[in-house]
Amino acid sequence: MDPVLIALGCGVLGLVVAYFLARFVLSQDEGNARVREIAAAIKEGALAFLGREYRVLAVFVAIVTLVLVFVPALGWKVALAFVFGAICSGLAGYVGMTIAVRANSRTAAAAAKSLNHGLKVSFRAGSVMGMTVVAIGLLGLSLLYFAFSEDPSFLAIIPGYGFGASSVAIFARVGGGIYTKGADTGADIVGKVEQSIPEDDPRNAAVIADFVGDNVGDVAGMGADLFESYVDSIIATMALSTIAIFSTRLGEPLIVGTDPAAAFWLPMLVAAGGILASIVGIFSVRVGEKLEMKALLNALRRGTYIAAGLSLVFSFIAVSFLADIRLFVAIVAGLAAGLAIGESTNYFTSYVYKPTLKIAEASQTGAATNIIAGFGNGLMSTAPPVLFIVIAVVVAYNFGDIYGVALAGVGMLATLGIQDATDAYGPVADNAGGIVEMAGMPHEIRERTDALDSLGNTTAAIGKGFAIGSAGLTALALLLSYTLAVGITPSQISLLDPHVLVGLFLGGLLPAVFCAMTLQAVGKTGASIVNEVRRQFREIPGLMEGTGKAEYAKCVDICTREAIRQMILPGVVTVLAPITVAFIFGKVALGGFLIGATVTGFILAVAFSNAGGSWDNAKKWVETGAYGGKKSPAHKATVIGDTVGDPMKDTSGPSLNIMIKLVSIISLVLAPVIADMTGIF
Amino acid sequence: MDPVLIALGCGVLGLVVAYFLARFVLSQDEGNARVREIAAAIKEGALAFLGREYRVLAVFVAIVTLVLVFVPALGWKVALAFVFGAICSGLAGYVGMTIAVRANSRTAAAAAKSLNHGLKVSFRAGSVMGMTVVAIGLLGLSLLYFAFSEDPSFLAIIPGYGFGASSVAIFARVGGGIYTKGADTGADIVGKVEQSIPEDDPRNAAVIADFVGDNVGDVAGMGADLFESYVDSIIATMALSTIAIFSTRLGEPLIVGTDPAAAFWLPMLVAAGGILASIVGIFSVRVGEKLEMKALLNALRRGTYIAAGLSLVFSFIAVSFLADIRLFVAIVAGLAAGLAIGESTNYFTSYVYKPTLKIAEASQTGAATNIIAGFGNGLMSTAPPVLFIVIAVVVAYNFGDIYGVALAGVGMLATLGIQDATDAYGPVADNAGGIVEMAGMPHEIRERTDALDSLGNTTAAIGKGFAIGSAGLTALALLLSYTLAVGITPSQISLLDPHVLVGLFLGGLLPAVFCAMTLQAVGKTGASIVNEVRRQFREIPGLMEGTGKAEYAKCVDICTREAIRQMILPGVVTVLAPITVAFIFGKVALGGFLIGATVTGFILAVAFSNAGGSWDNAKKWVETGAYGGKKSPAHKATVIGDTVGDPMKDTSGPSLNIMIKLVSIISLVLAPVIADMTGIF
Repeated sequence: MDPVLIALGCGVLGLVVAYFLARFVLSQDEGNARVREIAAAIKEGALAFLGREYRVLAVFVAIVTLVLVFVPALGWKVALAFVFGAICSGLAGYVGMTIAVRANSRTAAAAAKSLNHGLKVSFRAGSVMGMTVVAIGLLGLSLLYFAFSEDPSFLAIIPGYGFGASSVAIFARVGGGIYTKGADTGADIVGKVEQSIPEDDPRNAAVIADFVGDNVGDVAGMGADLFESYVDSIIATMALSTIAIFSTRLGEPLIVGTDPAAAFWLPMLVAAGGILASIVGIFSVRVGEKLEMKALLNALRRGTYIAAGLSLVFSFIAVSFLADIRLFVAIVAGLAAGLAIGESTNYFTSYVYKPTLKIAEASQTGAATNIIAGFGNGLMSTAPPVLFIVIAVVVAYNFGDIYGVALAGVGMLATLGIQDATDAYGPVADNAGGIVEMAGMPHEIRERTDALDSLGNTTAAIGKGFAIGSAGLTALALLLSYTLAVGITPSQISLLDPHVLVGLFLGGLLPAVFCAMTLQAVGKTGASIVNEVRRQFREIPGLMEGTGKAEYAKCVDICTREAIRQMILPGVVTVLAPITVAFIFGKVALGGFLIGATVTGFILAVAFSNAGGSWDNAKKWVETGAYGGKKSPAHKATVIGDTVGDPMKDTSGPSLNIMIKLVSIISLVLAPVIADMTGIF
Repeated sequence: MDPVLIALGCGVLGLVVAYFLARFVLSQDEGNARVREIAAAIKEGALAFLGREYRVLAVFVAIVTLVLVFVPALGWKVALAFVFGAICSGLAGYVGMTIAVRANSRTAAAAAKSLNHGLKVSFRAGSVMGMTVVAIGLLGLSLLYFAFSEDPSFLAIIPGYGFGASSVAIFARVGGGIYTKGADTGADIVGKVEQSIPEDDPRNAAVIADFVGDNVGDVAGMGADLFESYVDSIIATMALSTIAIFSTRLGEPLIVGTDPAAAFWLPMLVAAGGILASIVGIFSVRVGEKLEMKALLNALRRGTYIAAGLSLVFSFIAVSFLADIRLFVAIVAGLAAGLAIGESTNYFTSYVYKPTLKIAEASQTGAATNIIAGFGNGLMSTAPPVLFIVIAVVVAYNFGDIYGVALAGVGMLATLGIQDATDAYGPVADNAGGIVEMAGMPHEIRERTDALDSLGNTTAAIGKGFAIGSAGLTALALLLSYTLAVGITPSQISLLDPHVLVGLFLGGLLPAVFCAMTLQAVGKTGASIVNEVRRQFREIPGLMEGTGKAEYAKCVDICTREAIRQMILPGVVTVLAPITVAFIFGKVALGGFLIGATVTGFILAVAFSNAGGSWDNAKKWVETGAYGGKKSPAHKATVIGDTVGDPMKDTSGPSLNIMIKLVSIISLVLAPVIADMTGIF
C-alpha cells in the first residue's frame, strides 16, 4: 500500500469531522428576530465581499495560469497545480467563513443559555475552519501526488500548488485585513474617541462593517493564510527530498528504506498524524460553568497539548519507519520553537506581564508616550523569536541537514487543525458579543462572550507564534530549494559578491514597502469610514439619541470597495518583484533577495504583530480600571495606541508571513526560467 | 614630498579657518541681560552634561584600551589608535558645542539687527563645528599615517582610530538623543497638548532642558556622529587598499603609479580637496534682507553646490595623478547617490510635497490615522535610498571593485565640512529662537529665527541623506574588509551555509533591539519630564499666570541623569554583539551578522528618520493654517505624531547609522582574534 493513502484517508476523515461539526453548529438555535436580523446583515456583507474578492482573484489566477501554460519550460501541469492550489485555498476560506457567519448568532443564543454552551458552539465553528484547512490541504497534496509522482518533473509541479495557495492567501489576507481594520479603525475613532460611545454601539454606522470585517479578515483571510502556511511547509520539505536521499553530509543519507519516495511521504505522514491528533484534541475541549479565564484557558490548552503530544507520537512512528530517527529531533526542535515563540508572544502581549503593563503606564502621559512604548516593545519582542528560530535551525540542520530544517516547519504546523480552531473561534465569539450588544441582550451574556473573546486573544497570540515561526523555517527551506533548482552552487552565492549584497538590500526593502502600502491602505479606508460615520452623526436626525437609524450599508460599501481596490498593488508587487530582480541582476542576486526579504520580513512581522497585540491589551488593562479606567485620559491614549496597532497586527504583520514564502515559492516555480538569467548588470 | 602632507596641511588649514570663524562668532554682541541669563543656563546645563557623559566614556575607553593592550594579537599600537580616535571624536563634539552654546544668544542678538546678520552668526557657528570635525578627522588620520605607515601591521592599526571614533559616537548620539528628545517630548506633551501654551514658553519647566538638549544632542552628538562617518569612510577605503593594488578583476590594478601607498593617499587626498572646497563654499554663503525661504535656501544651496563641484575637480586631479581614472566614476557615483538620497529625503519629508501633505490630511481624523500615515510614509521612503545605494554599489563596483565602493563613500562625504555647517547651524538658530521667545523679544525677531530654523530643517534632511548613504557604503566596505582580514574566502561565506543564515538573522535583529532600547529610553525620560512639569504646574503657585517661576534645573537634572544612565546599555550591547556571535557561531556567521545588521539597520534608519521628519513637517503645515491651524483638533493630532517621531528621527534613526559601522569596525579591529574562531555550534 502506498503510504500516501494514509494521508489521503486522514484528509477525508478531516472533512467528515468538519461536516459533522458544521452540522452541529447549524442545528443550534439562531436566536431571536433582532439577533437574526443583525446576523443576516453581517452574512450578506461578508459573502458579498468574498464574492467580489474572488472575482478579482479569478482574473489574477487566469492571467498567471496562461503565463504558466505558455512558458515552454513550465507547462500545463504546473499551471494545473497552481489553479488547484488557488481553488483549494479559496475553498478553505469560503467554507470557514460560511460557517462563521452562521455561528455568530448561534453563539450569542448559546451564550444566553450558558458559558459552556457558548464555548461549544463557537469553538466547534472554529474547528470546522481548522479541520477544513488541514483536510483540504493534505487531500489536495495527496491527489497531486497520485497524479504526478511518477512524472520526472514532479518536483517542479508540486510547488505550483503552493504558489496558487500563497497567491490567493496574500490577496485574501491583505484585502480582508484592509477591510476589517479600516472598519475597526474608523468605528473606534468616531465611536470611542470622539463620541465616547461603547464598542459595538448600534448608533455607530460602522458597526456592521466592523463585524463583517472580523469574518472576511480574521476568518476567511486567516484561513487562506494558514492554508498556505500548512501546504507550503510540506511542499518545502518535499522540494528538498534530494537532500534527504543523496546528501551524506551527516554521515549517511537520511532516508533509510529502499524507496527514495519516502522523502515525500514523511512530511505528508507527519501532517496526517497531526490531523488525527487535532481531532482528538478538539473533542477533548470542554469547560465547566464558572466564568474563570483560567479554567477556559486550561480547557483550550489541554486540547492543544493533547494534540501536540499525540502528534509527536505519530511523527515518531512515521520517522522510525521511513527515515533516520535523527529527523525526529528536527521535528521536536520545530515544535519546541513554535511553543517557545508562542509563549514569548504571550509574554510580550498579555497584560499579565510587565511589557504590556508598562505601555499602559506610559498612557498616563498621553498617546505619544503610549505609542513610543508600544512600538519599542514590539521591536524588543523580536529578540526571542529570532533566537528560537536560530536554535531550531541549528539543531534541525545538525540532525537533518536542510531537509531537517524544512521538516521542523512541518512539525510546528502538524497540529494546525486545532491551532486554527482556537484561532478562528475568537472572531466568532467577538461577533457574537457584538450581536449581543447591538440586540440589547442582558449584560451577563455579554460578559460571557467577552470572556470567550478575550480567551481567543490569548490563544491567537500563541497561534501567531506558530505562524511566524513556521513562516521563517518554511521560507528558509523554500529559498534553499530555489538555489538547488536553479543550480546555484554554494561558492556562487557568496556574500562577497556585490550582486548578492544588492539582492539582500532589495529583498530587505520589499517588506518595508509592503508594510507601507498596507498601512496606508488601512489608513485611507479608516479615514473614509471616519468621515462617513461623522457625516451620519451630523446629518441623521436623532441618531445619537437613539431615535434615528444609522445607515450601516454605506460603511459596508466603502470598506468593500476600498479593500478590493487596495489589495491589488501589494500583491502584484510581491509577485513581480522576484522575477524583476532575477531579470535585472541575475539568479544569484535573487537568492540574496529572498534571504533579505525573509530576514527583514520575519523581524517586521513579529514587531508589528506584537506591538499591535500589546497596545490592544494595554487598552484592555486600563479598561479593567487601571489609571482611571474607561473614559479616563489614559484610556483615550490606549485607544489611539490600539487603533495604530490594528493594521500592524492584523493587516501588515500577518501578510508578511505569507509574503516571505510567496517570493520564494514563485522563484521556485519559475526556476526553469530563472536558471538562465544572469542579469543585465 | 609625501602626498599625505597635503592632507595634513588641509587639516591644519581647516583648524585655522575654524579658529577665525569662532573668533568672529565670539566677538558678536551677546544680547541683553535676560538673553545672557537664559544663555548662561543653557551653557551650564550643556557643559555639565557633556562633562558627565565624557567621564562615563572615559571609563569605557579605559576598559577597552586595557583589553586591546593585553590581547597579544592586537597590542598597544591598536590601543593607541583607539584612544586617539576616541579623544579626537570627543574633542570635535566638545569644540562644536562650546561654540554653539555661545552662538545662540549672539544669534538672537544678531537677528534683532537683521536676518542676514542672524544667518551669518548662526551659520558661522555651525561652520566652526563643520570645519573642526573634518579638520581633526583628517589631521588625526594623517598623524597616524606618519607614525605607523611603515609598520607592517598598519592596516590593523588604522581601524583602531575608527573604532575609537565610532564608540564615542554611539554613546554621544544615544545619550544626547535621549536627552534632547526626552526633554522635547516631555515639554511638548504638557506644554502644547495639555496646557495649550506655545513652544518655548517660559512657564514650561522643561524649556531650558529642551534647549540644552538641542546642544548636547543635535550639536555634540551629531558632531561625534559625523566625525565617525567621515573617518570611517576613509579608513574603510584604506583597509581595502590591497584590492586596489592587487585585484585584477577589472583587467588591471587600480593603482597606476609605482608606489602602492597611493591606495592610502587617494581617499585622504579626496578628503583634503573636500576641505578646501568646503572652505570656499562656506564663505560663499550670503543672503539678502528679504525674509524669503527660497532666497535663504538658495544661499545655502549655492555654498553646498560650489563645494561639491570644487570637490569633484580636486578628486579628479587626485585620481588622475594616483590611480586609474575609472575610480573617479566611483566617486561621482557616490556623490550622485548622496545628492539623490538627499533629494528623496526632502521629497518624503517636506510639506511642499504630497507624502507629508497626506499625513497632515490624515490628522483631520485624529492622532491614530496621523501615526499610521506617517509610519507608512517612513517605510515607503526607504525605497529610493535603497535603490540609489544599489545603483551606486553596482557602478562603483564595476568601475573600481570593492575599493571603488568604499571610495564612493568618501566622495559622498568629502564636503562634510560645509554639509555639517548647514546641519549644525539649525540647532543654533533653534536655540536662538527659543531665547527670543523666553526673553520676550519682539515678534519679528522670532520670525527671523524661525525662518532660519525652518531652513535648517530642510538642509538637515539633505544632510541626513548623505549620512545614511555614506553609512551604507562604508558599512559594506568595512564588512568586506573584515572578511579579507579574517581570511574568509567567497565560497566559505555562502548563503547556503546555515551559519551564515543564522548570522544574517541575528544581525537583522540587532537594529530592532537597538531601536527598542533607545525608544524606550526616550519614552521613559519623556514620562519623567511630563510628571515633573505637571507637578510644577500643580504645585508652584501662579506659574500658569506668570507670577510664579518654573524650576528649570529640576528638568535639566532629570534629563542628564536618565540620558547618562540609559545610553550605556545600547552602546555596550552593540560593542559586545559581534564578538559574541563570532564566539558562538564562528567568524563566517559574523560575516552574515554584519551584513544582516547593515541591511536592516539601513532600512530602519531611513524609515525612522523620514517618518519623524514628515510628522514634524505635517505639524508645521497645519501650523501654517491648514485644517484649522494651531489649536485645532488636527493640530493636536500632528503634535502627537511629531512627538512620536522625535525619538525615531533624532535618537534611534541616526544612532543606527553609527551602529552599522561600529559592528563592522569592531570586527575588523578584532580580526586577529576572530580569525581563529570557528564557533561552538
